[in-house]
Amino acid sequence: MKQAFHIVAIQTRGPGLYEFTDEAESFVRTEKVESGLLTCFVRHTSASLLIQENADPDVQKDLQDFFAWLAKSGPRFRHTAEGPDDMPSHIRSALTQTSIGIPVQQGRLVLGTWQGIYLFEHRDAPHRREVMLHILG
Amino acid sequence: MKQAFHIVAIQTRGPGLYEFTDEAESFVRTEKVESGLLTCFVRHTSASLLIQENADPDVQKDLQDFFAWLAKSGPRFRHTAEGPDDMPSHIRSALTQTSIGIPVQQGRLVLGTWQGIYLFEHRDAPHRREVMLHILG
Amino acid sequence: MKQAFHIVAIQTRGPGLYEFTDEAESFVRTEKVESGLLTCFVRHTSASLLIQENADPDVQKDLQDFFAWLAKSGPRFRHTAEGPDDMPSHIRSALTQTSIGIPVQQGRLVLGTWQGIYLFEHRDAPHRREVMLHILG
Repeated sequence: MKQAFHIVAIQTRGPGLYEFTDEAESFVRTEKVESGLLTCFVRHTSASLLIQENADPDVQKDLQDFFAWLAKSGPRFRHTAEGPDDMPSHIRSALTQTSIGIPVQQGRLVLGTWQGIYLFEHRDAPHRREVMLHILG
Repeated sequence: MKQAFHIVAIQTRGPGLYEFTDEAESFVRTEKVESGLLTCFVRHTSASLLIQENADPDVQKDLQDFFAWLAKSGPRFRHTAEGPDDMPSHIRSALTQTSIGIPVQQGRLVLGTWQGIYLFEHRDAPHRREVMLHILG
Repeated sequence: MKQAFHIVAIQTRGPGLYEFTDEAESFVRTEKVESGLLTCFVRHTSASLLIQENADPDVQKDLQDFFAWLAKSGPRFRHTAEGPDDMPSHIRSALTQTSIGIPVQQGRLVLGTWQGIYLFEHRDAPHRREVMLHILG
């Protein structure tokens, strides 16, 4: 049984989806894992993970608009000290994923044809985000 | 350490929850894994996964109605080329799961008494969906 | 390859977030796993899991208010036999997590500085909840 870790560092420039499918695939290839499980884990509570369509860029814009709308439609927030975009960011993170497991078969992630792996940045200001990749195979 | 893969193929007939708990349990039994981790991964972005109550069928109808309502309550969509039900499907997928990990103990999934594993179909037209099962044990 | 299981039992006192980060960390230490994957799995459909900020308690109150508001804003429910708070609880569970995988590196969970692991209780009445921890390393 083999294990390996890799940190994906993503410099964000405001809210939106930042794809890292290639870096994840490349990590699996470099580690030469034939069969196993890749875990992607985001080490933040105001950015999250999402597997979504990587074909039409409008899908990403619509997703972003929807989550922006939703997190601001509820009751008024108490937690405002870190800025008006902080609490909506926690909510959007809670509604999506902190951790995603993806099986590896024949040396490749078993993603469907249109699936891409994304960091979902929710804060307005630029941030350096870390996604921990862990492979077990 | 043992690994095995199995594809659950589900022919859907419109939006709703399609249970595959039995097929997942049967895969674990067939592979004779005593302790381990089962990962369920859906290879689509307009269908998703959900663990929910398998007792009262009304729970499933209420869940479906809620997610249908929610995905249509937000801002207007740009991505409409694949039909009016496509973008709401991506949103409903983003709000639920693409991947679920379930521990296996004493040869059985550690599901609670009322928990069932479901494919959540979001598109109106029938689709052939694939859920990849991967066991590590 | 080593495996171990541990049940976190949490007695809840109404809706809210109940942290169990310390018990999860302690399980990893006790099992002396240097590298691996911890899976947290909740065996219920009206309580769920969430990784969120453990600094300002107001974040938790705002999260709880948001999810309470959201689950009650949709269409009317059919499933009411188990009380008016049961169906909203299933919805709040569906919108958050049943299972979370967290890599272990150098003997520690790779959580970010502000991340805590929580059971999210959705029912009004007190419940005894079980979270199954499984480590593979």
